[in-house]
Amino acid sequence: MKNEFEWIRSISPGFHYHKEVITGIGDDAAVVREKAGYDTVLAVDTMVEDVHFTKETMPLKAIGRKALAVNVSDLAAMGAVPLYFIVSIAVPKSGWTQEEIGEIYSGMKGLAEKYPMDLIGGDTVSIKEKLVISVTVTGRVEKDRALLRSSAEPGDLLFLTGKIGYAAAGLDRLLKEGKQAWDDEDPFIQAHQSPDPHVKYGRGFVESGKRIAANDVSDGAAHESKEIAEASGVDVNIEWEKLPEVDRFAFLSDEKQEEWLLRGGEDFCLIGTASPKTCAELEERNLPLYIIGSVEEGKGRVWLERSGRRSELLGGGYTHF
Amino acid sequence: MKNEFEWIRSISPGFHYHKEVITGIGDDAAVVREKAGYDTVLAVDTMVEDVHFTKETMPLKAIGRKALAVNVSDLAAMGAVPLYFIVSIAVPKSGWTQEEIGEIYSGMKGLAEKYPMDLIGGDTVSIKEKLVISVTVTGRVEKDRALLRSSAEPGDLLFLTGKIGYAAAGLDRLLKEGKQAWDDEDPFIQAHQSPDPHVKYGRGFVESGKRIAANDVSDGAAHESKEIAEASGVDVNIEWEKLPEVDRFAFLSDEKQEEWLLRGGEDFCLIGTASPKTCAELEERNLPLYIIGSVEEGKGRVWLERSGRRSELLGGGYTHF
Repeated sequence: MKNEFEWIRSISPGFHYHKEVITGIGDDAAVVREKAGYDTVLAVDTMVEDVHFTKETMPLKAIGRKALAVNVSDLAAMGAVPLYFIVSIAVPKSGWTQEEIGEIYSGMKGLAEKYPMDLIGGDTVSIKEKLVISVTVTGRVEKDRALLRSSAEPGDLLFLTGKIGYAAAGLDRLLKEGKQAWDDEDPFIQAHQSPDPHVKYGRGFVESGKRIAANDVSDGAAHESKEIAEASGVDVNIEWEKLPEVDRFAFLSDEKQEEWLLRGGEDFCLIGTASPKTCAELEERNLPLYIIGSVEEGKGRVWLERSGRRSELLGGGYTHF
Repeated sequence: MKNEFEWIRSISPGFHYHKEVITGIGDDAAVVREKAGYDTVLAVDTMVEDVHFTKETMPLKAIGRKALAVNVSDLAAMGAVPLYFIVSIAVPKSGWTQEEIGEIYSGMKGLAEKYPMDLIGGDTVSIKEKLVISVTVTGRVEKDRALLRSSAEPGDLLFLTGKIGYAAAGLDRLLKEGKQAWDDEDPFIQAHQSPDPHVKYGRGFVESGKRIAANDVSDGAAHESKEIAEASGVDVNIEWEKLPEVDRFAFLSDEKQEEWLLRGGEDFCLIGTASPKTCAELEERNLPLYIIGSVEEGKGRVWLERSGRRSELLGGGYTHF
């Protein structure tokens, strides 16, 4: 490989969208001019080869795109405008070529163009075994308007901005079938390989000016509901029959259905709560919601109503250990 | 291990120093209120087990402290005040205990208290083989005052803010002797295990209001001089006999001397250029400098003057590949 400095410089043109970047790649650190009246939002997410992806489950471009997308999804969940990103990548001494790393960056570039976001720096190191990509993003939200998970109140409705269970279904196929399952038209495969962060919803929620709690569904609807319930000091009730396209998963055992739909994770739409009036207003703002439950007084619990019975969802969803 | 959320929450108290943190750990991303009149500086550095450290070469606390220190050094090189940091850590499925990871964080906490810096978020994932720690820092510098490496001009002096070669000498001993070499009093061992970022100098340079180019010496004096020379479109001349304590390394072969002193890296003081008048003023401001050379008209080359001969230093210093 070329030396790091030359190499990062060679991939950086075409990532410059913001005139506020005073100095990006090429000095000790990046300098970005901040605007008064805004809060800065920062997030980091890391993807590890053989844990979060393999060359069998993900095209190279999709690996890069997703490493950025999962971070943009964190910005979306705060209602922030995506602005800048920094990439730290640990490249194994064998098994990966410079061209392959370039493909990963080109996948990031695709999503960076969409929002648009500037690549303002990074660090490239070597590692013995597996590829590790860590992306840090920053974004901007109007002062005091970030969407916090602590804003839920009894009487709110619980909503989703997209379908869940899709990414789990896609991963299941990819683990069984490998590259044979790659299919740009299959919505399950695409949900795992090319998730779309719901920035449009996050921004729409902030622009509505209403009280709205939100999380992205990265760790599954059960876990994310639990975070909202705990942070807000309320109970959350999920109604099984209201989950979008719940029938689509009817071929699975009951246990497997709940695992994929409620704990599968990686769907990267938003889950949140708002008053019934606000939910109706959001629909009018062209932000369609799936209403899947409600918020009641309580102490941080999540309930599942299914087939006329109600049970507590313990332990949340997917955790990283 | 506990689940990630509880665990990060359990280590986060005691990291909260800044009232500008609206929401840190515990939501999808961090929200930090920005001040008008300042530029934001961001940097990331990654440390990989068996590449940048081993349990034999570094105490656990020192691993954490250094992972943060090398980033703070990037802020120092821009003249920024350190503010916040985010930690992404990939923990191997075996070989590391939760207590050991706690020790790493406690090492970060030591340095975070000094500046002070808030831990505002993070991501913890699992990995099959070796530990990977990636730290992102942000800091603040007065608008348009960041110290850039492109500010050098012919007639400037080249300076160091500390001694070089120490970290390379320490690493050499640690690789040969392992834990037996651990010694809190040995300046070489300490230079490798517990580098002190030169924030005092960076801030002093900015506060002087003068034109000053700066880099931290993370990749060795030869490489960092080359970056300044190229970014500024000048040549830089290093005078061997002026290097601080150059005699201390006289027991080595000439080749080894140049390797440790000029290409060893990881010393984490600053290297920079300023006019002779500015250098004198900095000394008066209680910022003592080692003057080690000069800047002349040129095209991005670095020269070494040694024993009456002058040769070009090619290829810079240590690179990560």
